Amino acid sequence: MTEVYNRIALIGLGLIASSMFWSIRKGNLAQEVVGFAKSKKTRDTAKSIGLCDHVFNNLKDTVSDADLVVLCTPVGVMGEIVEQIAPYLKKGATLSDVGSVKRSVLDAVEPLIPQDVFFVPAHPLAGTEHSGPESGFSSLFENRWCILVPTTSSTPNAVENLTRLWTGMGALVDQMDADHHDLVLAVTSHAPHLIAYTMVGVADDLSRVTEKEVINYSAAGFRDFTRIASSDPTMWRDVFLANKEATLEILGRFTEELFSLQRAIRSDDGKTLFDYFTRTRTIRRGILDAGQDTEAPDFGRSLVEKSKSD
Amino acid sequence: MTEVYNRIALIGLGLIASSMFWSIRKGNLAQEVVGFAKSKKTRDTAKSIGLCDHVFNNLKDTVSDADLVVLCTPVGVMGEIVEQIAPYLKKGATLSDVGSVKRSVLDAVEPLIPQDVFFVPAHPLAGTEHSGPESGFSSLFENRWCILVPTTSSTPNAVENLTRLWTGMGALVDQMDADHHDLVLAVTSHAPHLIAYTMVGVADDLSRVTEKEVINYSAAGFRDFTRIASSDPTMWRDVFLANKEATLEILGRFTEELFSLQRAIRSDDGKTLFDYFTRTRTIRRGILDAGQDTEAPDFGRSLVEKSKSD
Repeated sequence: MTEVYNRIALIGLGLIASSMFWSIRKGNLAQEVVGFAKSKKTRDTAKSIGLCDHVFNNLKDTVSDADLVVLCTPVGVMGEIVEQIAPYLKKGATLSDVGSVKRSVLDAVEPLIPQDVFFVPAHPLAGTEHSGPESGFSSLFENRWCILVPTTSSTPNAVENLTRLWTGMGALVDQMDADHHDLVLAVTSHAPHLIAYTMVGVADDLSRVTEKEVINYSAAGFRDFTRIASSDPTMWRDVFLANKEATLEILGRFTEELFSLQRAIRSDDGKTLFDYFTRTRTIRRGILDAGQDTEAPDFGRSLVEKSKSD
Repeated sequence: MTEVYNRIALIGLGLIASSMFWSIRKGNLAQEVVGFAKSKKTRDTAKSIGLCDHVFNNLKDTVSDADLVVLCTPVGVMGEIVEQIAPYLKKGATLSDVGSVKRSVLDAVEPLIPQDVFFVPAHPLAGTEHSGPESGFSSLFENRWCILVPTTSSTPNAVENLTRLWTGMGALVDQMDADHHDLVLAVTSHAPHLIAYTMVGVADDLSRVTEKEVINYSAAGFRDFTRIASSDPTMWRDVFLANKEATLEILGRFTEELFSLQRAIRSDDGKTLFDYFTRTRTIRRGILDAGQDTEAPDFGRSLVEKSKSD
């Protein structure tokens, strides 16, 4: 793979930025990747594990010579960061981000973009329940989708280069407008996360069932919820506040459906339940066929446990 | 391991029964394991894969010489089956089951138990999203809990032998009364399943988001829900109808909490969201420490995918 950029700057060194670094390095997609983290602890960790060619403690040095700057922080602080870096962005540079919400980022960032800088928001739909600089790995984006949201400050060339970068990291790339992205993600990510957080919170708060019981007997379904409910709290707080309307709309639909199923249970309406549960199997099949999940029973947990003990 | 029973009869040959067979065989826990399935197709599949030493097409022959009979059917038909097998159960035999609900099974079955037969309901908390005779594997119960619910028709000896069987299959064994079992499972399994089914149903039913989008962009959280929402519809219909009160109680609590988080989102109350999301991380830690899930990122999906392509 030929290099797509000379210098890439990653702002914020968590799961996504660190996975980008290892993936860019592996694919030889840039000559140099530099990073910035606000906290000294994160910078020290990054240096000790060789994350980024240079780790800076100030935004100006991080961005001033970069051809691509990627915001990898929680979405709530992106506007503020762009205010600080805008004066130092190189002429002809591309600014992008990896935020899970696009409308609010676009509204906050686009007005601040200097002329001769191209803004191409992006969202890689990949992640794990772990966070921080040590959680990244080079294959995180392989066969996962990355959605680009071109703006009036994008150019076809800037979009094409960013597409090459993400493709080089193994991702499948699609384009969408910001509002549609936010609605799709409300369904496939934001509402499921809030629901999982809620269910785990309920289990944690029952007086008649002990925490030990919840933990020991979690393998019957509950533990799947705890994985996504252990995702980074700051990131998710920002996501819900930034994608408020679409998330609340989907949650409203969810509650309606839940009530109708509760009613079916209360009135012994087995047919409604059976039909509903049969319908939902199809979508799982589609996800497996699309290569977006593994068919191994139980996500292959038993395989992982065995390979660990080998 | 010494044999615990001479002959074990499994009624219904799905995921749990087939996993029991392979596990009993591996651990040499019985001299003979016979099985019954209502459908000819299931019986033929069982015979072709060597599942059970004998596969019967009638209940009488299945149970008449068995020291342990285990009901492995959906809970809704267990009472009916016991009505049919009760006259043929051997004196001194133990009857057990693997149903996900215990109160309704106990109420339906216990009055039908002949004198000199010992009834020890059980529930192994293990499973995958797959069903049918071919879905079983011998390690399914390893390090998973099996809850026994001794009744007035149990004897200490019958409970002890059944405990030895489950321990021999690798399970951890606990005892509980039926009502508490049903409440605990409503939290750790039944409510999460209904919630997952609901979320998948909502996603499937939106006009503004296509099914292809839901499928492609599922890796951001949604796909975790689809696994448990692809579990066997008959089994789950029966579970909800049989554990109605506890499930509705937990769903009521869930809805209350969900409303309060929706309110926090609507009113920009980031602190409430952040605190809630921080609290739910602890319970995940407990589940990992208890060996009830794997710590591999994303449940180790990437490892599984890689080992497949090796």
